[in-house]
Amino acid sequence: MVSTAHSAVNQALAPALTQAMAAIHRRGWCDGTGGNFSCVVQRDPLQLLMAPSGVDKGSVQPGELILVNGEGQVIEGAGKASAETALHLEIVAQCDAGAVLHTHSQAGTLLSGWACTPRSPGDTDSSAQLDLRDLEMLKGLRGVHTHATQVAIPVLPNDQDLQRLSAAARPLLPAAPHGLLIAGHGLYAWGQDLPEAVRHLEILEFLLEQRWRQLLLECLTAAARGALPSGA
Amino acid sequence: MVSTAHSAVNQALAPALTQAMAAIHRRGWCDGTGGNFSCVVQRDPLQLLMAPSGVDKGSVQPGELILVNGEGQVIEGAGKASAETALHLEIVAQCDAGAVLHTHSQAGTLLSGWACTPRSPGDTDSSAQLDLRDLEMLKGLRGVHTHATQVAIPVLPNDQDLQRLSAAARPLLPAAPHGLLIAGHGLYAWGQDLPEAVRHLEILEFLLEQRWRQLLLECLTAAARGALPSGA
Amino acid sequence: MVSTAHSAVNQALAPALTQAMAAIHRRGWCDGTGGNFSCVVQRDPLQLLMAPSGVDKGSVQPGELILVNGEGQVIEGAGKASAETALHLEIVAQCDAGAVLHTHSQAGTLLSGWACTPRSPGDTDSSAQLDLRDLEMLKGLRGVHTHATQVAIPVLPNDQDLQRLSAAARPLLPAAPHGLLIAGHGLYAWGQDLPEAVRHLEILEFLLEQRWRQLLLECLTAAARGALPSGA
Amino acid sequence: MVSTAHSAVNQALAPALTQAMAAIHRRGWCDGTGGNFSCVVQRDPLQLLMAPSGVDKGSVQPGELILVNGEGQVIEGAGKASAETALHLEIVAQCDAGAVLHTHSQAGTLLSGWACTPRSPGDTDSSAQLDLRDLEMLKGLRGVHTHATQVAIPVLPNDQDLQRLSAAARPLLPAAPHGLLIAGHGLYAWGQDLPEAVRHLEILEFLLEQRWRQLLLECLTAAARGALPSGA
Repeated sequence: MVSTAHSAVNQALAPALTQAMAAIHRRGWCDGTGGNFSCVVQRDPLQLLMAPSGVDKGSVQPGELILVNGEGQVIEGAGKASAETALHLEIVAQCDAGAVLHTHSQAGTLLSGWACTPRSPGDTDSSAQLDLRDLEMLKGLRGVHTHATQVAIPVLPNDQDLQRLSAAARPLLPAAPHGLLIAGHGLYAWGQDLPEAVRHLEILEFLLEQRWRQLLLECLTAAARGALPSGA
Repeated sequence: MVSTAHSAVNQALAPALTQAMAAIHRRGWCDGTGGNFSCVVQRDPLQLLMAPSGVDKGSVQPGELILVNGEGQVIEGAGKASAETALHLEIVAQCDAGAVLHTHSQAGTLLSGWACTPRSPGDTDSSAQLDLRDLEMLKGLRGVHTHATQVAIPVLPNDQDLQRLSAAARPLLPAAPHGLLIAGHGLYAWGQDLPEAVRHLEILEFLLEQRWRQLLLECLTAAARGALPSGA
Repeated sequence: MVSTAHSAVNQALAPALTQAMAAIHRRGWCDGTGGNFSCVVQRDPLQLLMAPSGVDKGSVQPGELILVNGEGQVIEGAGKASAETALHLEIVAQCDAGAVLHTHSQAGTLLSGWACTPRSPGDTDSSAQLDLRDLEMLKGLRGVHTHATQVAIPVLPNDQDLQRLSAAARPLLPAAPHGLLIAGHGLYAWGQDLPEAVRHLEILEFLLEQRWRQLLLECLTAAARGALPSGA
Repeated sequence: MVSTAHSAVNQALAPALTQAMAAIHRRGWCDGTGGNFSCVVQRDPLQLLMAPSGVDKGSVQPGELILVNGEGQVIEGAGKASAETALHLEIVAQCDAGAVLHTHSQAGTLLSGWACTPRSPGDTDSSAQLDLRDLEMLKGLRGVHTHATQVAIPVLPNDQDLQRLSAAARPLLPAAPHGLLIAGHGLYAWGQDLPEAVRHLEILEFLLEQRWRQLLLECLTAAARGALPSGA
């Protein structure tokens, strides 16, 4: 059932995927064997090319990628599929995505956790979103044609049960801006194909880092203003 | 009308431009196909060598650059010219620039937006500027010979109508310090030729990042001082 | 007693260790000849392959590594063993580690010092720990299977007497999460073998940087909230 | 008087110096043709190998370096000597330095300016220093053997008259910790030879970045504490 020989399609996709992974690793977005990355090879029946679980994503070679079917089972290559494959499959199904990139960046980890923090004692709403607005870089997301807009990235509480997490993500995916955050965990970004998924990932990670800096500046100017004798 | 063969001039300029773009991309200043970069090939009639729109600026090859005329139309090479070409042309005309580099850095995006934020409820002035002063690095800007000076980068509100944005920029360009900010969008830097434009870009991006750190420190020391019991 | 020829085991381990050191140096975690790095070559009698003291850890060549015995004496190769070898040996003994990586990162230096700062005038407790919780990246530590947990990195006061420091570390090591901080100094991370030690190092450094950002955000939101007129 | 052929000594030193410059440039410490770097070739009469003024320090080739005499005049190679050569010569004379490295980092620019900012309305003292203490990395400075110490980097106000600036530096240099800051300008670091100067530079830049993070944390915890209702 498992073979190391890849099909012709994979032979074109595989080095593109491993190069994208190496670039993502160089930016510190998938340290410590974190993150996962997949491309759709064919849709009927569904086949995903992806990195095996538990390996350093920055040094995977094309021949080390695995092929996974629509049930998340490895059908080609050596290694285990990550439990997170379930969410990759959900995104492919709901968003007609051709590639899914899942990263663990500093800003993505921080802001997803912050967005899910209860703001007041009685706050029990576990759903959350992260708003991004008025930035030119939003136009890097397919379907956005002006900076004068607001985009909401849904943020889900983290869950080690990936079937349950995928089910929770399902209703949010069609309206999501090619990205979804898991609290204290990281970002899923996707696109019609690998280049678009890479573009969406770079855009969303840029916007998350920018939101972090905005937040620092907003809080600081409020604190500095409040510290003035007049309170002005 | 469109051909992939470049003239002798382009053959010298093209690799210099793509190498500059790759270095800019490595610094994270043009993620997600953002930013744009141009060099003047000849002035009469005007011809600009530039990256096509919508491609990853870090991996453009010399042969993939396009040649654009003074009306922003592609006259050589494959691909579309960015709508932002209008502002490149305006800068070339007003500042006699030989190269224009447009980046989307974290500090440029943040501080341009911050500079345009109304400071009080009645504040309706949409024009703004970002002041930089008393820094040795200012001397990297042509015409500045001492740190003991103040430089004001004009900041324009963002606008998807590039003709209107260029018209708004026009009166500000001659006095601008080889750089212009668009709010929530990024920096345009320019120079007499590509090496000077690169130097001005590095200087202005350094100064923006420095201004961000200064701002954090100013707000923090104010907030910490205000938090003391004596208010001292 | 000293020879530059390495055994067959070393010949496999040595380039893996120097490559790991070069990657760690590129991240700025061992500037200025700081840090130290070791692998167990054999256990009975114990032999450690490690970098000599006082050299730039980013450019060490495999043939420049030294072999050290269980008493910290150089038995092969040119150069001196760092005084910190004592703590490497302690970690190998207490944690059955196959590799020990010691770094000087910004976040590790800062948070280790901060964790040991007395919180109130009467606070004389010099022992400390740094708590990390509710983060997916914790799962990169062997033995952690959910984000919904809390991990405490022990923090010891710095001490130039490495025998005394190692003795102070001894009782804390078995329960430590594959990592130990020395205040104002840096991180020791370890694993069963070099790849696991590298994974634990990347995970712990990620978590330290994340904790630094969390701390900024916590303090800032508290300060900004306190600055509001209502105090809400 | 000017020739491009270098002596045998230079032929060994030149590539070491350009490689050090390229590494320093990659870290963003000499953007926009900023910074300058020199090595002593011989002492009697004094000859300094250094980068010419006004070039990108990251891409200088060994053959492009210039040789400068004890009066700061170019005696070999093409290009101009920086006006800052005067301070390089002063450091060589006062500290018996074999190499001098001058950088423009974010932390060095910011903290040097901050250290010289008057703390109160009546404060007219223009001399200043930046204190660093209780950090293991201090041991990377020659002569420091414990973290439990305090080191003061002198900070001079910036001055475009380099003769005057060098004269102001002269009395401070012998006691300086292999480093000197110029306010809003950057760091001079030196050592007995190039490798030691590089080590001191990496150590001092690490410590400056660390001091910046310490300062953020100190101010933030003070502001957050002050924001509590009880003021505790």
